[in-house]
Amino acid sequence: MDKFKVLIGSRQAPDIEAMLSEVPDSVEVRFLPHGEPLREHIADIEILFGHIGEEAMQAATALRWAHQPHAGVEGFMYDAFKDSDVRLTNCRGLYGRQIAEHAFALLLSLTRQIPTQLEFMKTKHWERLPCIELAGMTMGILGLGGIGKAIATRARAFEFEVIAADVEPIDKPDTVSELFSLNALMDFLAKAHILVVCCPITPETHKLLSHAQFNQMPDASYVVNISRGKVIDEDALLAAIRSGKLAGAGLDVTYTEPCPPESPLWEQPNVILTSHSAGASQHIRRRAMQLFIDNLHRYVAGEPLVNLVDKQKGY
Amino acid sequence: MDKFKVLIGSRQAPDIEAMLSEVPDSVEVRFLPHGEPLREHIADIEILFGHIGEEAMQAATALRWAHQPHAGVEGFMYDAFKDSDVRLTNCRGLYGRQIAEHAFALLLSLTRQIPTQLEFMKTKHWERLPCIELAGMTMGILGLGGIGKAIATRARAFEFEVIAADVEPIDKPDTVSELFSLNALMDFLAKAHILVVCCPITPETHKLLSHAQFNQMPDASYVVNISRGKVIDEDALLAAIRSGKLAGAGLDVTYTEPCPPESPLWEQPNVILTSHSAGASQHIRRRAMQLFIDNLHRYVAGEPLVNLVDKQKGY
Repeated sequence: MDKFKVLIGSRQAPDIEAMLSEVPDSVEVRFLPHGEPLREHIADIEILFGHIGEEAMQAATALRWAHQPHAGVEGFMYDAFKDSDVRLTNCRGLYGRQIAEHAFALLLSLTRQIPTQLEFMKTKHWERLPCIELAGMTMGILGLGGIGKAIATRARAFEFEVIAADVEPIDKPDTVSELFSLNALMDFLAKAHILVVCCPITPETHKLLSHAQFNQMPDASYVVNISRGKVIDEDALLAAIRSGKLAGAGLDVTYTEPCPPESPLWEQPNVILTSHSAGASQHIRRRAMQLFIDNLHRYVAGEPLVNLVDKQKGY
Repeated sequence: MDKFKVLIGSRQAPDIEAMLSEVPDSVEVRFLPHGEPLREHIADIEILFGHIGEEAMQAATALRWAHQPHAGVEGFMYDAFKDSDVRLTNCRGLYGRQIAEHAFALLLSLTRQIPTQLEFMKTKHWERLPCIELAGMTMGILGLGGIGKAIATRARAFEFEVIAADVEPIDKPDTVSELFSLNALMDFLAKAHILVVCCPITPETHKLLSHAQFNQMPDASYVVNISRGKVIDEDALLAAIRSGKLAGAGLDVTYTEPCPPESPLWEQPNVILTSHSAGASQHIRRRAMQLFIDNLHRYVAGEPLVNLVDKQKGY
């Protein structure tokens, strides 16, 4: 019997690659050689660990399943992939904890004046600074998936009121006091002293947050984005920060990445930029590989895969 | 009948001083003129809002009650005050939320590499950085009073295991999985990946954390101090950071404050210093004055005061 041919799209650390010794006997694992184009190695591959673009997709005639070792899958949302019968899985569920920690790092750094304190350290300057207490404020979570829910749990413990908006008619968890549909986005924003962007990028969420949306928020609010930069109209965000409408923004993601040198965000006071690092964790590569290997056992056994992406919805 | 003479030891913002219009009719409120010595205005004062030192205490023959508008009261722990029958109250209970926010700001800034990211911003450098996920680690809270409990609640939501050590035989809250006495400090420290110092400074806690204590912690642990700098032997802390035993320290307080220019802490990588700002909040002065005014009504009515300090224990 032919083996199930798996291609790992990028080299992993030795301890992570060693985990692949646990694949079923009927699986043959190959690695894409560093620097070589995927299209030249995809022809007889049934299962891909990694991203595939439009050009390689033309050659992927044997491909039946692609696994994205991250949460976001917008890179697969072109017609040739969406219209194919190739299944797509992702790593949702593995990111809530570390991304929630990152979101609070950004938010609390803004309110406790960490950037100014770090500057003071350079000149050995000791000066008490006013800080903002967030307890009692309302956090609005845009996109209540696994990451949004992880943030909601932590926000409740911080004595925030938590509200959320989601495109899906999901059940409201106890940590969330009010759940809005995207049709009621403006009502949601009017209550959010802290807006945390946790939603995937889709045609519906592209530049969803622009001038009118930021103006709808309470004065001196905060914005944190740990999902996708393209959800935010950055010109509108900058205008809202410069006018004082927003007290600050913590952005792990930007419209274009890497954030281009000409972006005014780099030099904007009350903005903290991090480099799409919210998902970083000492555990993530091991967890992501384990999820793939577990799914591989299901695939070989003809069982349903977990973490299937709805290619029409885009998440 | 003579009025109860109250001296407010330092000028407050106008909106805070305006709150004093709510004092009982039998109370006369005075303000210590800016820059003048307390000893020259204390002679006929029965109630003091603020600190009193040894010299002024000699003149405070009418003093019956002093209220410290902060949480720490070590400045009152000299014999002439301790042995007097002047009652002492403080503002414990008003600091948990903002100090917990500050503690997490310090901790998460260390693990999510905020200082390095802020340096990157200056050169418009975009580079993904490894970060440490804290979920699953054990946080050890040294001093489980109101502030320690507020931190414990948040830490549980972050999926930390939480343990605590306290000098008092207190009840263990549900957020804490194991409670240690100070006699078992070394057992406590052996489990703490994250040590948060929340205890008052007393003879018992002075330099309680020194070489042996830091060495007892797991490798690559974190220390956060948001209570009193004198609990830590800073030479030992520096040695533990330089050796890599500690992965980082977030210190809102130092042994001497302001932190002196010659302190190596200013330039130590993996140390974040803030300027005794953890208690800062846009709400704190109003809350502190309200607590005093409420107690003033109790005093005038002959009722027991809240937030009485045990002068022999020092907290």
